[in-house]
Amino acid sequence: MKRYLTVGPTQIHPIVKQEFVNAINNGIFSLSHRSAGFREIYDSTCDSLRNLLSIPADRRIFFLSSATECMERLLQGTVENKSYHFVNGCFAERFYNISKSLGKFPIANHVEFGEGFEPCNVQIDNDVEVICLTQNETSTGVMLNPESVCSLKEKYPDKLLLIDSVTGLPYSKFDYSKTDAVFFSVQKGFGLPPGLGVMIVSEDVINRASYLNGKSLSTGSYNSITELDKNAKKSETTITPNTVGIFLLGKVCESFLNTGIEKIRTETKQKAEMIYDAISKSPDVYSFVQEDKYKSVTTISAGCKIDSSVVINHLADYNLIVSQGYKSFSNNQIRIANFPVQTFEDIQKLCKHLPELSII
Amino acid sequence: MKRYLTVGPTQIHPIVKQEFVNAINNGIFSLSHRSAGFREIYDSTCDSLRNLLSIPADRRIFFLSSATECMERLLQGTVENKSYHFVNGCFAERFYNISKSLGKFPIANHVEFGEGFEPCNVQIDNDVEVICLTQNETSTGVMLNPESVCSLKEKYPDKLLLIDSVTGLPYSKFDYSKTDAVFFSVQKGFGLPPGLGVMIVSEDVINRASYLNGKSLSTGSYNSITELDKNAKKSETTITPNTVGIFLLGKVCESFLNTGIEKIRTETKQKAEMIYDAISKSPDVYSFVQEDKYKSVTTISAGCKIDSSVVINHLADYNLIVSQGYKSFSNNQIRIANFPVQTFEDIQKLCKHLPELSII
Repeated sequence: MKRYLTVGPTQIHPIVKQEFVNAINNGIFSLSHRSAGFREIYDSTCDSLRNLLSIPADRRIFFLSSATECMERLLQGTVENKSYHFVNGCFAERFYNISKSLGKFPIANHVEFGEGFEPCNVQIDNDVEVICLTQNETSTGVMLNPESVCSLKEKYPDKLLLIDSVTGLPYSKFDYSKTDAVFFSVQKGFGLPPGLGVMIVSEDVINRASYLNGKSLSTGSYNSITELDKNAKKSETTITPNTVGIFLLGKVCESFLNTGIEKIRTETKQKAEMIYDAISKSPDVYSFVQEDKYKSVTTISAGCKIDSSVVINHLADYNLIVSQGYKSFSNNQIRIANFPVQTFEDIQKLCKHLPELSII
Repeated sequence: MKRYLTVGPTQIHPIVKQEFVNAINNGIFSLSHRSAGFREIYDSTCDSLRNLLSIPADRRIFFLSSATECMERLLQGTVENKSYHFVNGCFAERFYNISKSLGKFPIANHVEFGEGFEPCNVQIDNDVEVICLTQNETSTGVMLNPESVCSLKEKYPDKLLLIDSVTGLPYSKFDYSKTDAVFFSVQKGFGLPPGLGVMIVSEDVINRASYLNGKSLSTGSYNSITELDKNAKKSETTITPNTVGIFLLGKVCESFLNTGIEKIRTETKQKAEMIYDAISKSPDVYSFVQEDKYKSVTTISAGCKIDSSVVINHLADYNLIVSQGYKSFSNNQIRIANFPVQTFEDIQKLCKHLPELSII
């Protein structure tokens, strides 16, 4: 049986199959999204996610179709002119490009791919309205420390801090009181089929969106922050949502809660150490990220001294599926997922076979 | 076992459970949306849908997150100033409102809810760029004849014709060469869990979008018509999509093809006649739509002479779940789905119990 160590979509969480079957048997996917039955599922998923990530009661949770939609709706709802973007990879660049395509005036702070930031060493202009960053850059394998990210809010309390943690959660631990938006999609660290984006937002985001609504800007039509909030207050979504995703997310959160989030974090860290150790022992690959403090724990990029397809095929011979490098890195990098769904067994097997290629 | 005769989400197609399990077992939801494996599923679903609905080869098929998103992306991509809207219910009104919230200048042609249009009797101004209508109004149970809708394209060949057929398809038969966009969501006539919108568009829509791109309008950022088209050409989506929905849509289309679409249409028509006959025999309800030619075949609205909850609960006693009226009609209407997933048995049972309430 193949095991997916891909950076997303990834290995599907083992409870998904049975929970889907149960849901079908109970008519859950036939429920109207304006019914009490749906609202119960909605609340249950939100409660489990809140418990899992320690999200304070004053933070709102919204369901959208993807993390990319989260970027768009946040920028539409909060930026009149200037957004500031830390850009060290393709997903941070996407955040920047969406701002541009919405007719805003984004500012990009670029560093080389594979490098990170000390966000607080950066000076940001007064007229910047929101600060955007990608806390775990899936395209390069750079992870920023959540604490250092959140310190931006202390330095710039009047700017909104919008955090893409698509592949960081649930491993990455945020103090949500120092964030304005944190968003993710479910096909990464939660091991679900794709098609659902989740956004955790502050009241300041809601207020900012309602202020911008009054300015006759186009702030996101049916899925504007204001509409999302209005519906979330009723435990509903703006439109008929991906109910499968919302339902299964709740079930996976419950399963993570049963294991214990701190245990999951500790084990994730241990597995990451095993992977970096195996990379260092392999003659064919090296850690693409050089500085230890930026080495991602959840999505690990390895540069390849030989064509990446040789490494990928070698691992595939053992039913281990890893991702190729992103876009221009496709031939000279591999990327390895280390989410909660990747087991110690998966990682042990990977660590056994990764270093042996040039040796055998 | 409950049977859902709700207007969407509705009864789930019987093959969904097993096909989902097969897909999980085959790792399908772990596939990258930039992989050959995904492209195969994408192509297979498009082929089956094309065969089922007789979609010409020059029409593009795009996957989005909902029919509401289809409305938004179409309006962003094709309207510089004026859209024209036939409005006879809440979903047509949504189409109109989205245009307004995008900063366009929509014109609405209102008729009373429960009434329809002869589209070609209407004069539309020269400066209108696109004509929008909801071919089957789920909120009122009014269905417009696809031929009469498509005749608008003959009368106004230079305007784009954008058709919401969310609850019309696959029953409604369009000559797609006389349409510019037809869109639907999968939780209605295709009996799938919600979370996927599908759009069938003409080359004129693509050309119009690329013309508007040059005008520095905001045309839909990551999910603009241009981006959708660029990716669809590679059998890919703009972002990681609802793969479950795309995969299952293909399987349901195959199943419909095995039955034969004309057989499905004939049976759907027969079931509708049974339902309207039962409504006419019931002392408690009446057809909300008066004119025969506007009576929807797929979503049937019945006005209630008693509180709708009495009728709904009576049917629920027999495990038949129907929808309440939409919004302001919730207390004095019920709505009954008559999609391919509702069987003759379902409808016979409904027809037996619907008329008996005041009699027993």
